[in-house]
Order: sequence, then C-alpha cells, then structure tokens
Amino acid sequence: MLKKIDNLEKYLRDAGIKPSIQRLKIFEYLASTNSHPTVDKIYGALSSDIPTLSKTTVYNTLKLFQKQGIILIINIEDNETRFDADVSFHGHFKCIECGGVEDFPIPEHGKIEALVDYDISEKHFYIKGICANCKKIINK
Amino acid sequence: MLKKIDNLEKYLRDAGIKPSIQRLKIFEYLASTNSHPTVDKIYGALSSDIPTLSKTTVYNTLKLFQKQGIILIINIEDNETRFDADVSFHGHFKCIECGGVEDFPIPEHGKIEALVDYDISEKHFYIKGICANCKKIINK
Repeated sequence: MLKKIDNLEKYLRDAGIKPSIQRLKIFEYLASTNSHPTVDKIYGALSSDIPTLSKTTVYNTLKLFQKQGIILIINIEDNETRFDADVSFHGHFKCIECGGVEDFPIPEHGKIEALVDYDISEKHFYIKGICANCKKIINK
Repeated sequence: MLKKIDNLEKYLRDAGIKPSIQRLKIFEYLASTNSHPTVDKIYGALSSDIPTLSKTTVYNTLKLFQKQGIILIINIEDNETRFDADVSFHGHFKCIECGGVEDFPIPEHGKIEALVDYDISEKHFYIKGICANCKKIINK
C-alpha cells in the first residue's frame, strides 16, 4: 500500500530530487491513482494543466523517480511500461481481457535458497490471466 | 527446468506451429542456452547460419512461440526483452552489475487469496540485485 505523504516537496527533496512543479504534478498524479498508468496516460492526464509538458519529460522524470527509489517500473508487456508510486512489495495482476492492472498482496514464502549470497534490490511478482469481472461477462 | 524434447518438429507441430527451418533453428538455439537471450543476441547467433534471417523474423517467430505457449517472454527492463524456452514456473534474477539473468527455483508459497476467483495463465517472479560473483569482485 502507498504510504501517506504529508509534504510532497520534502518527500522529493529527501529522495534527492529537486521538486520542480512538473515533478510534483507527475508524482502527485501517480500517487493518486491505482491504475498503474503508462507515460501516455500520465501525459494525457496532465498536459492540459501543464501545456509545456512533453512525453519525454514525463518519461525522464519517471526514470529519475525510479532511480531515486520512490516509484517502481512495471514491465508486464514488452510494449507497455507502467509506473507505480507504491514501492512496497506487492504483486500485479494483468487481465488479458480488459487490460486492467491491479495489486494483490504477496503470500508468505520461504527463503530463496539459491539467492542467499546475493544482494537483492528489487522483487517483482506479476500474474496474467482473466479477472473475476471479465470471467462473469464471458460466462454470461 | 526445460523438459527434454526428443522430436522438435513434432513438438512444434503439437503446439500448432508449422516447423519451418528458421523456426526449428530459433527454438533449438533458445532451448540450448540458459542466458535468456534478446532478439539481437539470437539474431547474432543464427544470422551467419541462416543468411536470409532478419531481426523482424526472429521477433515474429518468438511472439508466435509465446502465443502457442512454448516459450516465455521475460520483461525485466523496459528496454530489454528476453526469451526463455523453459515455461515451467521459476524465478529470474538479473544482476545490475554484470547484466546476467539466471534462473532460481521459486519457494513454496501460500494461496493468493485475492485471486481465487481469477483465471491464471502466467506467473512471473523476478528479482534484481547483485549476484554473488559480482559481490566478490566489488568487495576485493
């Protein structure tokens, strides 16, 4: 779950990021949605509010956020990169019918013996299939 | 672990794939390596043997293999798609130092309660960090 952020400017500064207006707006948007948006979606949501925004700026800002550890990049499809402001370890389910991506809590699991001597910096778990809603529609 | 395939032509046919020479060579190469290669790597390994091969053909063949369920697409980085002929459920570790991708067995885990009403078609688990070899080099 995304932790509550009281002071976004401070949050970015603490992560080593200069809080420009564009960066604040991009993070604020990402933290406000659980739709795991793409660059196009984020750009579409903010471009009327910030007319100087470009897709390249959105992408570069997100890459900076990821480098500084305040967002995750979600790669489920090879032609669709999504972003998540929730950096806690949780799973993503992508429905191949409706295209939606939702979170799920990861069940407890044993130690990964093969990696005991490795340094772990990121863990990602994702599942593809058909969500309960789409199953109902298909079975109607 | 990749299952042993005795008759590759039959294996492709059983998966609904017409076994052309190019398809056989591409699958054979992918099944012979545990390096989880990219399109570029596969093309580089086969182009001298098959002069008519193009990167587009390699990519389209791999997408067909994935559609028919005989390979997995591995998306760890948003700018690097890799492929795996082992379709059993296993994890991938990517070292951010040497760039290598290796397999690891997934530990037992509990039921994913949030997804009990969902149909699951693919599960992917990947971890990024520093492998034991690179740690040794860094700590020298």
